[in-house]
Amino acid sequence: MDTPIYKQLLLAVDFENTSEPVIERALRMRALTNARLFLLHVVEHVPPGIDFMPVGYAGDLAASGDLALEEELLGLARGELDALGERLDVPEADRLVRVGSPGHMIDEVAAELGADLIIVGSHGRHGFKGLFGSTARAVLRHPVCDVLCVRMEEPAS
Amino acid sequence: MDTPIYKQLLLAVDFENTSEPVIERALRMRALTNARLFLLHVVEHVPPGIDFMPVGYAGDLAASGDLALEEELLGLARGELDALGERLDVPEADRLVRVGSPGHMIDEVAAELGADLIIVGSHGRHGFKGLFGSTARAVLRHPVCDVLCVRMEEPAS
Repeated sequence: MDTPIYKQLLLAVDFENTSEPVIERALRMRALTNARLFLLHVVEHVPPGIDFMPVGYAGDLAASGDLALEEELLGLARGELDALGERLDVPEADRLVRVGSPGHMIDEVAAELGADLIIVGSHGRHGFKGLFGSTARAVLRHPVCDVLCVRMEEPAS
Repeated sequence: MDTPIYKQLLLAVDFENTSEPVIERALRMRALTNARLFLLHVVEHVPPGIDFMPVGYAGDLAASGDLALEEELLGLARGELDALGERLDVPEADRLVRVGSPGHMIDEVAAELGADLIIVGSHGRHGFKGLFGSTARAVLRHPVCDVLCVRMEEPAS
């Protein structure tokens, strides 16, 4: 048992309050394993529901206004991820923002990085019905590595 | 970060070769956290597909032959779990065999024990389509605690 259990952790974050238990677990896993921790936030395509939107696409569904909104969301996400990265002591190079379908993108990034543990949140009472829930479920459909699903309380709504 | 991340691990095992990576991960988590490790094997109702079969039930679907088969499967499972328990240094009281629907039974036992991490296997290439896959998916539908899904290779078939 000399090789470490995990060397590269990939923490998928949204910016809801419910992410705190997930973040806490990731920090503890990092402390336990001395692994490198990557942060990933996936900005969903605008409009939602579109899985592929090539750069420069100018069809009916993705008018320039939507691309502008996507750019704005990307900027906001980068800002939030940077703040989180500072707080968690994760260097800039290990803070990743991507655009796409969260489940597939998390898998893709995990494969790229050679991550050996993906850490995602799951909702407690309603299982995988929430936003993060569907993400976790998508990740688990074709896992490229181990996945730690952290139980979250239901968001106050 | 003084309280341990996990204190009670619940490892759901079948007795396929593909369980080895899952077992290995459970041992490493135990070593890392000094947690107590419980082993659980769930024997599915005979005939499969029946979720509830009260003791003494003697309807068409669960004839006495099926109950006898279930008893036999239970005996075999206890034998295998004892062997595994010896190998992993898990005391007898922490080796559990239950009859039921695996997903629900794992959740139920986790709640009973106050487990804080369930460890299950997932198939790699086909995601959750295999036997263990459907178990993991059922567990994740209403998680009572964190769930570590360990990536397994496809079984040779």
